[in-house]
Amino acid sequence: MIERYQRKVLKDLWSDQHKLECFLQVELANCYAWMKDGLFSKEEFELLKKAKVNPMRVLEIEEETKHDVVAFIKAVSENLGEEKKWLHYGLTSTDVVDSAYALIFKKVNQIILQDIDDFMAVLKEKAFLYKKTPIMGRTHGMHAEITTLGMKFALWYEDFKRLKHKFQLASQEIEVIKLSGAVGTYSTSHPNIQKVAAEYLDLEESIIATQTLQRDRHAFYLSVLGLIGSELEKIATEIRHLSRSELREVSEAFSSKQKGSSAMPHKKNPILSENICGLARVLRGYMHTAFENISLWHERDISHSSTERIIMPDATTLLDFMLVRYTKTIRSLVVYEDKMINNIESSLGLYASQKVMNALVDRGMDRLSVHDYIQKLARKVEEENRHLKDIILEDQYLKTIIDESTLNNLFDYRNAYQYIEHIFNKVFR
Amino acid sequence: MIERYQRKVLKDLWSDQHKLECFLQVELANCYAWMKDGLFSKEEFELLKKAKVNPMRVLEIEEETKHDVVAFIKAVSENLGEEKKWLHYGLTSTDVVDSAYALIFKKVNQIILQDIDDFMAVLKEKAFLYKKTPIMGRTHGMHAEITTLGMKFALWYEDFKRLKHKFQLASQEIEVIKLSGAVGTYSTSHPNIQKVAAEYLDLEESIIATQTLQRDRHAFYLSVLGLIGSELEKIATEIRHLSRSELREVSEAFSSKQKGSSAMPHKKNPILSENICGLARVLRGYMHTAFENISLWHERDISHSSTERIIMPDATTLLDFMLVRYTKTIRSLVVYEDKMINNIESSLGLYASQKVMNALVDRGMDRLSVHDYIQKLARKVEEENRHLKDIILEDQYLKTIIDESTLNNLFDYRNAYQYIEHIFNKVFR
Amino acid sequence: MIERYQRKVLKDLWSDQHKLECFLQVELANCYAWMKDGLFSKEEFELLKKAKVNPMRVLEIEEETKHDVVAFIKAVSENLGEEKKWLHYGLTSTDVVDSAYALIFKKVNQIILQDIDDFMAVLKEKAFLYKKTPIMGRTHGMHAEITTLGMKFALWYEDFKRLKHKFQLASQEIEVIKLSGAVGTYSTSHPNIQKVAAEYLDLEESIIATQTLQRDRHAFYLSVLGLIGSELEKIATEIRHLSRSELREVSEAFSSKQKGSSAMPHKKNPILSENICGLARVLRGYMHTAFENISLWHERDISHSSTERIIMPDATTLLDFMLVRYTKTIRSLVVYEDKMINNIESSLGLYASQKVMNALVDRGMDRLSVHDYIQKLARKVEEENRHLKDIILEDQYLKTIIDESTLNNLFDYRNAYQYIEHIFNKVFR
Amino acid sequence: MIERYQRKVLKDLWSDQHKLECFLQVELANCYAWMKDGLFSKEEFELLKKAKVNPMRVLEIEEETKHDVVAFIKAVSENLGEEKKWLHYGLTSTDVVDSAYALIFKKVNQIILQDIDDFMAVLKEKAFLYKKTPIMGRTHGMHAEITTLGMKFALWYEDFKRLKHKFQLASQEIEVIKLSGAVGTYSTSHPNIQKVAAEYLDLEESIIATQTLQRDRHAFYLSVLGLIGSELEKIATEIRHLSRSELREVSEAFSSKQKGSSAMPHKKNPILSENICGLARVLRGYMHTAFENISLWHERDISHSSTERIIMPDATTLLDFMLVRYTKTIRSLVVYEDKMINNIESSLGLYASQKVMNALVDRGMDRLSVHDYIQKLARKVEEENRHLKDIILEDQYLKTIIDESTLNNLFDYRNAYQYIEHIFNKVFR
Repeated sequence: MIERYQRKVLKDLWSDQHKLECFLQVELANCYAWMKDGLFSKEEFELLKKAKVNPMRVLEIEEETKHDVVAFIKAVSENLGEEKKWLHYGLTSTDVVDSAYALIFKKVNQIILQDIDDFMAVLKEKAFLYKKTPIMGRTHGMHAEITTLGMKFALWYEDFKRLKHKFQLASQEIEVIKLSGAVGTYSTSHPNIQKVAAEYLDLEESIIATQTLQRDRHAFYLSVLGLIGSELEKIATEIRHLSRSELREVSEAFSSKQKGSSAMPHKKNPILSENICGLARVLRGYMHTAFENISLWHERDISHSSTERIIMPDATTLLDFMLVRYTKTIRSLVVYEDKMINNIESSLGLYASQKVMNALVDRGMDRLSVHDYIQKLARKVEEENRHLKDIILEDQYLKTIIDESTLNNLFDYRNAYQYIEHIFNKVFR
Repeated sequence: MIERYQRKVLKDLWSDQHKLECFLQVELANCYAWMKDGLFSKEEFELLKKAKVNPMRVLEIEEETKHDVVAFIKAVSENLGEEKKWLHYGLTSTDVVDSAYALIFKKVNQIILQDIDDFMAVLKEKAFLYKKTPIMGRTHGMHAEITTLGMKFALWYEDFKRLKHKFQLASQEIEVIKLSGAVGTYSTSHPNIQKVAAEYLDLEESIIATQTLQRDRHAFYLSVLGLIGSELEKIATEIRHLSRSELREVSEAFSSKQKGSSAMPHKKNPILSENICGLARVLRGYMHTAFENISLWHERDISHSSTERIIMPDATTLLDFMLVRYTKTIRSLVVYEDKMINNIESSLGLYASQKVMNALVDRGMDRLSVHDYIQKLARKVEEENRHLKDIILEDQYLKTIIDESTLNNLFDYRNAYQYIEHIFNKVFR
Repeated sequence: MIERYQRKVLKDLWSDQHKLECFLQVELANCYAWMKDGLFSKEEFELLKKAKVNPMRVLEIEEETKHDVVAFIKAVSENLGEEKKWLHYGLTSTDVVDSAYALIFKKVNQIILQDIDDFMAVLKEKAFLYKKTPIMGRTHGMHAEITTLGMKFALWYEDFKRLKHKFQLASQEIEVIKLSGAVGTYSTSHPNIQKVAAEYLDLEESIIATQTLQRDRHAFYLSVLGLIGSELEKIATEIRHLSRSELREVSEAFSSKQKGSSAMPHKKNPILSENICGLARVLRGYMHTAFENISLWHERDISHSSTERIIMPDATTLLDFMLVRYTKTIRSLVVYEDKMINNIESSLGLYASQKVMNALVDRGMDRLSVHDYIQKLARKVEEENRHLKDIILEDQYLKTIIDESTLNNLFDYRNAYQYIEHIFNKVFR
Repeated sequence: MIERYQRKVLKDLWSDQHKLECFLQVELANCYAWMKDGLFSKEEFELLKKAKVNPMRVLEIEEETKHDVVAFIKAVSENLGEEKKWLHYGLTSTDVVDSAYALIFKKVNQIILQDIDDFMAVLKEKAFLYKKTPIMGRTHGMHAEITTLGMKFALWYEDFKRLKHKFQLASQEIEVIKLSGAVGTYSTSHPNIQKVAAEYLDLEESIIATQTLQRDRHAFYLSVLGLIGSELEKIATEIRHLSRSELREVSEAFSSKQKGSSAMPHKKNPILSENICGLARVLRGYMHTAFENISLWHERDISHSSTERIIMPDATTLLDFMLVRYTKTIRSLVVYEDKMINNIESSLGLYASQKVMNALVDRGMDRLSVHDYIQKLARKVEEENRHLKDIILEDQYLKTIIDESTLNNLFDYRNAYQYIEHIFNKVFR
């Protein structure tokens, strides 16, 4: 991933250095298990634990071997004594690679999980802050009925509860050790080795495998990253909409020296939200790639490997960046409550048309007729640019059915949060 | 979906007739809840329960209204008396549409779940049947080590355990009622109406919503269909590989009057497996569409609706078809165990090279040197077309380290299933 | 494709009946070529030309043969005499299927090309109609500078010139006959047969093939459908934006009995544009599927076949529907020019900030300083809700540099179409 | 893109340094045009030409401005005198960014075009080398009829003719200057400025634009990269299939110190071909992202920008790497012609079944009956493991119809290249 969209912590976790260190940890876990199994002595294991890995040296050797794990083993072995022969004992390369990925993912996933929690904390805070802040609800881009700004944040919080659960499930499926050998039969090892090594590394064991872990696991994981990215895009799209010149209900915080445009000095644009929308598209692209990795040939082909070298770091790094960036953006979001009221007012009471319709049905009118009737009055509101309530009060027929104080109740903004406690209790219980 | 890839049961569930019946069920559940709430009498509800819906009439009215739910209500109302005014009381169209989808999905998901169970049952049966049937394990398309045919089926069974769990999770997320109105505030209803209606229909309640259920739910569902399709593709790809003229380890059952080719009378092709591979690609396309539906505008825009009219029936119908078809294909799969042995033999013992290497390490040799040594012998196997064991036995150096009976053990096919009980216990416990 | 999104003309072209008729046309073209080659007499060919195909009978036979082309030949042969033996002479099934697809595509593509031309005609008409209708240009969803409504239509017209060219290129690549046999070597035929048959059917010849035409052709074609769909989505998104309650610069035509919402009688929503946006997502999904069809095994595998039975009709039918529907929508689009002026006015002159900046640079000021200076005035505009021109005129410093009449020129709406003739000449030359 | 899949030449072209140099070139071209227009003197232009850009300084300033082009202008201005005020005169940022992209793409596309030519040269060479090398043609993974290895290469060459044409078309569409300002109206410039600057930079002019070039251009470009990647995948898949242990008709060149597996010393795997297959999936993911960039809001939103910073360098870098790598792989491909003959022989003459069928039809037999007849003999071939010719010769009925020397002709391998001159003439004319 390019520097611009990368936090250092993720960069380090996906560095060659760290990857090779994870290779080494897997090798040591395997050694530990064989030592416990009696293959060699604790002293030899202590010597093995002193092994170091030098990424530059690995690359040099790989030039020759064209095989990264063989190069890694050679490089590590160069600084070991006799004990080096127990390194990689009974393993196939993918045992090391897949299990090392599991170690990296475990750390990466902890960070992303924290990112999710941080983002949810901000959503929750804003939900309660704006719990009863009326804002026009919009469907089809058109004014519908009034809702509250807090409802939007609560909705996203609830969405993230679902997403977090999926992220945890997906994380579990890839934080898995696999030491069952070239075709998964433990041909040069035995199941207890994997079990002891799993405990050593605090990873789950794979139950059955071929040469590799099955790639539906990784495809699922990337689809969850895609879902989370798409959810962020949904939120960012809302912020972009509410920021529009004609709405101006919110704006991203804008620092004093910031420039919106090189050409137009007056511009203040929701660029962070636009950025999130773009990056979500990139995540969906990676997801797609991962799905094509599922159908490998026989006990494995290595076609997935090149893609994973690219998309695994890129996708996780990008999502971490997005979550961290957007947590800040939402935290510092500027809200213009008065503009929200203005926009509601501009609808001239049409937001209450359904409530009026229902009240008329309650008073005995037929549903379909009243729908036609109100639709006509609504056109009058638009043509005459007058408030629906006033037009109803002048209507010879309707004014016999419904009185002004009832109408006042129907148009009251506070109806928007009549059941907000109920909803918030369910979301934030 | 085209007739060719559609079972009648799915066709009926996704028919306009059934969809409108589900609309009606939702309306009745809403009526029931309002009746319980005291809005009108049990007698009126009994009259409402007699409502019928005629799809042709709905279409006629929709020509005028350009709105399907309004047309539906009008059509149903035509055969009702005064009580018709309680129909759709307090609802917005999407309350009906999304909740009706939930009802359809509930039935569809039961069928797919049964399909999954049926397929898993066949996988399990085959796993046990071929538990100890040796077959060459292949990586990169090349002979690796021996495994068993049963291992393949057990692996897929385990894969399906993961997939089934996800399918159940995804099903739950869309089998959800949503009656909270135009922008999710229950503006013309109240939360208890949704609660009572949910019980009436035996659906889960949505906790918070806008005008619609949030579409990450449906995207997740379609990604799971995509995962299951991709898993079927993986299995079908394996069958296609094993069927190749040069391997001939399995073949699809071929009826006596079946033709493989209009041109080449001798052909017997794995067309059902090829078909599955193609259809999996179609499922992945639908998944992609569903992800773009997540980011709707504000409290909803209706852009997702058109896509869902297409991809929801098409994707579920296709997956049902695939599962049912491939259950039959696997059940009747023809297996040539003797050809498997022939193919193993053709590798001239190379399948045991790692076991030999490990045995030599155990006897004191250095890992990297022994790897080079065996690599040289392997080339000799190829050049001279002679068995690795014979070449080792002639090797002046190696024959001092390892004896023939040890070698015989190392080359024994039965090594492939040394730990099969352990693995099967974990998979099928 | 579901009825709702399907025109009859496309439905018929993709019907089984028409497909089998195209099979028959290909068979006859092949017979014609062999007759010309001297294999049999003109009389026999005349008898062959009387062949008929009954789709129901084909399906019946396919139940047995599990092979659609073999079934087709049997069904056709049933009503022929001795001459039936020349049917399918020297052909393999895919020769028939791929060449028949070419015939169907040729007709389908003519229709879509006409659809494109019709849509472009409406775009052109609107471009000229609104050539000098000022509308606020918006970037990042924020007011930028003024443009004209006609510019938008001209832009889309130019986009469609590119797209039409690609569509024609893609059409050519799939309107291709292929009669070179089971693996493309003309093993039971010869190149002249293909040549003569191509002339008979007025199709291009494939230069080299395997059993099939190569599927990069079809993937390219579907990517072009995806591009056109995405362009329609871009246009529809613009219409949706301009229709928003707060903008109201355009609206879709709304018939007198149409209903916007079952709940909210006042709603008039841009549902046709939303519909287009959704359907574009479906097209992109099909595109994706087609790309996975490129990499077939060896001289062909049949995995693409199932996908093409679905996505070829569905994608072309959908695009035809979209183009026809949206041509009507754009043709009848309601434009509110006064609202456009209102919205421009609401920006209080900020739309001219760059012109002011440039004028000041022309008068000697430094670019970066003047950018900072105008940015400050722009904030004043917002805070005091007053027009930028007035604020500049009061500014002690600026009023020494720039006079009112110059300012008036800078703020003149007509600047937006100063170069419109130049642009239109290039677009519509 | 990660180092592993990146050539230095592409890395440099996509470096921040080079990008900013291209920014500067665009600014200078704009200055040149204004100078020619008479805004300022040639001397001032000469001073402007001395401008330099320091990427580190730009980043520093961007920290403050949050706007990369504003930061770039500030940084460049710091080392200029009074003339700095003409920098960026009349431009908006995207004029610079999109036009600079055009300059980068122009160089990148030249390299990729050369890569394509190099790859095609190898394909052509191999096509002629193996023009008459018989190899079993395979459909459905099963033996079909004989073809030649040269046919495969010629087919891919023809595919690449199509792809190269598309690549050139797509290149043209993005090697385009755009200097028409904030909303495309030339509000602070005029069309001749763009024209003169285009000539200065040797780029095509955009005919009409908004703030940006329209992104269908870039989506098309990335779809073509996806097509080329998918074609490489098709070729690589063929190589992987032909390399399989049971086929062994080709193998990738394998250096003497290379290791196939850390576990299995005997392995020689087609890893370069597998690598290409994986990377093609990544390219398809990028394509997908690009399609979602088409539908920007109004005169532009900036959501595409983040994605393009990632996918433009990554996709082009990856395709360059793939083409260069795979040109080497194909050039050094090892071909086992004897193994091809062995595999043909193993089909026991079934490859000629259609030719036999046709010969029998020529001799008066009915097509459908002879198909059934030969199908039965084919089963006998399999069951008795004897050559089809021998079985025919023993057949009481057939031997009256067809004699041995005719049969010998039908089974002759040379039939596979009977029309190869014709085909090669068309492909390579």
